[in-house]
Amino acid sequence: MRPEPPPDADTVAGVGEFGLIRRVTRGRAQPSSTLLGPGDDAAVVAAPDGRVVASTDVLVEGVHFRLDWSTPEQVGRKAAAVNLADVAAMGAAPTALLVGFACPADTPTALVDGITDGLWAEARRAGAGVVGGDMVSCPNVVISITALGDMRGLAPVTRSGAAPGDVLAVCGRLGWAAAGLAVLGRGFRSPVAIVGAQQAPEPPYAAGPQAAEAGASAMLDVSDGLLSDVGHIADASGVAIDIRTDLLPVHQRLIDVGSALGANPRHWVLTGGEDHALAATFPEPADVPDGWATIGTVRRGAGVTVDGRPYEGTSGWEHWR
Amino acid sequence: MRPEPPPDADTVAGVGEFGLIRRVTRGRAQPSSTLLGPGDDAAVVAAPDGRVVASTDVLVEGVHFRLDWSTPEQVGRKAAAVNLADVAAMGAAPTALLVGFACPADTPTALVDGITDGLWAEARRAGAGVVGGDMVSCPNVVISITALGDMRGLAPVTRSGAAPGDVLAVCGRLGWAAAGLAVLGRGFRSPVAIVGAQQAPEPPYAAGPQAAEAGASAMLDVSDGLLSDVGHIADASGVAIDIRTDLLPVHQRLIDVGSALGANPRHWVLTGGEDHALAATFPEPADVPDGWATIGTVRRGAGVTVDGRPYEGTSGWEHWR
Repeated sequence: MRPEPPPDADTVAGVGEFGLIRRVTRGRAQPSSTLLGPGDDAAVVAAPDGRVVASTDVLVEGVHFRLDWSTPEQVGRKAAAVNLADVAAMGAAPTALLVGFACPADTPTALVDGITDGLWAEARRAGAGVVGGDMVSCPNVVISITALGDMRGLAPVTRSGAAPGDVLAVCGRLGWAAAGLAVLGRGFRSPVAIVGAQQAPEPPYAAGPQAAEAGASAMLDVSDGLLSDVGHIADASGVAIDIRTDLLPVHQRLIDVGSALGANPRHWVLTGGEDHALAATFPEPADVPDGWATIGTVRRGAGVTVDGRPYEGTSGWEHWR
Repeated sequence: MRPEPPPDADTVAGVGEFGLIRRVTRGRAQPSSTLLGPGDDAAVVAAPDGRVVASTDVLVEGVHFRLDWSTPEQVGRKAAAVNLADVAAMGAAPTALLVGFACPADTPTALVDGITDGLWAEARRAGAGVVGGDMVSCPNVVISITALGDMRGLAPVTRSGAAPGDVLAVCGRLGWAAAGLAVLGRGFRSPVAIVGAQQAPEPPYAAGPQAAEAGASAMLDVSDGLLSDVGHIADASGVAIDIRTDLLPVHQRLIDVGSALGANPRHWVLTGGEDHALAATFPEPADVPDGWATIGTVRRGAGVTVDGRPYEGTSGWEHWR
């Protein structure tokens, strides 16, 4: 472990654990679902449905985010979004975040403040509060988030309910984060909308409960890439899924960036992760809610095809490989 | 970041993320409160009370545990225990754990298996299941746990409800982990019971709901040290608390280890953290349940005293200081 630097008023060592906890919790307005917020051994959150939906993600500096590519506020927004999207993908309404934050002693307090602002901004966008957490010393920056949600009387939408004859639909951005990564990787900082999508996704949280209410048979959020994640629905449901490229939403901005970089924007849409769009299957085409785009069909069989053929190339991201 | 070593069948890189997830989830029996376990975007856990209690802790290798001092199974037990104790300290019955696990690519799968076994063993002791999580690559080993619990119709017991005239009582081990640390620090590996207490605490989970039912006015788990943590009750409740050393439970094993090492066992009991005993205040001496030891009184004023006087010495652990 690195030697401890001398405490400095603008570092977490200078402020100390309890000072830091005061700093990240003061002046934040909790939603009505937060029955008991930070400051005790545990938080208490309303779960009126009688079931609580819960998901955890861990983000590591250098693996999931780069502080030279993103502002602390963007890192906080991204850390919250990846979890809130998981909760929405069950059809639940997010209610709360718990935040585990690990960092070295010489970490600037401005970094912690920025991440906290981002966490709160994204939590609010989803209707949730930051209700508790833990702050510890660690050689590198690690953010671990647990998101909770309420089903509001609906049945959870799992990955395993797709059936032959269903249609596949998506809601939210696809390929934007991958395009942003390609832009950043070439040393560019614009277009801002594309780069911003890589720095912090904007999952369509309300579309999760919307799809559950519309009778979605299976759903997940696209975190690793459309083909890879739709493959999880196919595997869990024991079905084949075919995606039609002529139905695929390829935004004009992606086409422009693709032209500039000499890259295929459709490849970003099919394989790019980190946008946290929602993908769901519905029994009937008429079930697909407003704001969703139908992009394929569910058949008997196994695996995912594109226009009836296996897709050539890698289909997503797996850790340690 | 360290260079990636070549994948090896007995490392997490060799098994891969999805293989590792299969490995840690297969063959585990979930309690009835687990409505949907690992494998989807989020877990679904019963919350029959209509409120869910939730707490997060992060454990970092080298800061919170040492793999040369503890087995992986002990590390897993400890990681689960610190969170489950927080939930019990609200008066809730633990229902579920979510586990964020970060480690380097060359981490042996045996380490992951051992930690998983420990997490499950401790979860079972508390009546909970391991319902979900996330596994990511990271330069060092970090374990982040969120524990959920159900209040079973009781009011949550916070830190702020102590009132003058209340009595202070404790349940569970105090000073054992500190004594174990002293033993390990001298290079010894025994007595096993004392060293084992440092490696993995044994919080009295059932005593949390027991105290809530008995009318506890304030409660927390002793994670940083008795004086430090009782100080949190005093601060939050706006009261003074006096601890009587003649009532303090100092186990004969601690007296023996103290004699051998030339240390004061009472200092371990008053200031040692990591045992996760429960400390609670009760309005009347007769309210104190079986298995709890009354050790002090609540008065008007502020701060914590020992036999009416300020305690000389440090009173607990604060990160980054």
